[in-house]
Amino acid sequence: MNNTEQIAKEFTQLCTAGKFEQAGQKFWSDDVVSIEPPGAPADIQRIQGRKAVDAKGKWFSENHQVHDVKVEGPFVNGDEFAVRFEMEMTPKGKSRVHMTEVGLYRVKNGKVVEEKFFTS
Amino acid sequence: MNNTEQIAKEFTQLCTAGKFEQAGQKFWSDDVVSIEPPGAPADIQRIQGRKAVDAKGKWFSENHQVHDVKVEGPFVNGDEFAVRFEMEMTPKGKSRVHMTEVGLYRVKNGKVVEEKFFTS
Repeated sequence: MNNTEQIAKEFTQLCTAGKFEQAGQKFWSDDVVSIEPPGAPADIQRIQGRKAVDAKGKWFSENHQVHDVKVEGPFVNGDEFAVRFEMEMTPKGKSRVHMTEVGLYRVKNGKVVEEKFFTS
Repeated sequence: MNNTEQIAKEFTQLCTAGKFEQAGQKFWSDDVVSIEPPGAPADIQRIQGRKAVDAKGKWFSENHQVHDVKVEGPFVNGDEFAVRFEMEMTPKGKSRVHMTEVGLYRVKNGKVVEEKFFTS
């Protein structure tokens, strides 16, 4: 098992256990780039650095009630891995939504240096 | 709907209809790069050009019996889209397998210039 596979498995196990923040805390590089899908608020479309992704995570958890998450993966190739998320959630003041997305993660020196989210 | 979204939808619709070859014929660029997951035969790990991907497609269909395919997507972001495939197949002379993979496609000038497959 190479380094990317190992990180992909640990990362996905933490997500499966609902520990999304811990997954990030453990594996994000200091200058990690995080890219949201089109339709995300402009100020979080593409952000860089631990401080910015921490702030986005805080904003998300304060503004969304997550009812259920299904995690599938990881799907690995080379220095990248993909994870499929299926989420049932209610954004603050809005209606409950069911969302499916794919997260694509690039690994370098044992850390996630980029995450990019794709929506259907 | 931007160009990538449109291509992603058409491409995925063809795959959903079982028309994988037609999807490729319609959208591969002449110098498309195709990257298989680790574990694939070394000579098709990374190939480039229409002639090579056509030959790989022919090799695949001659050496695998596909019983069922489920296609989910596309998941889009920027110039890339992802598609999830779930496939029930029997490689020639081997046992029937159930396989789930994610295909990641990059679009340029209305064509798929790279496809990369991720397995779990």
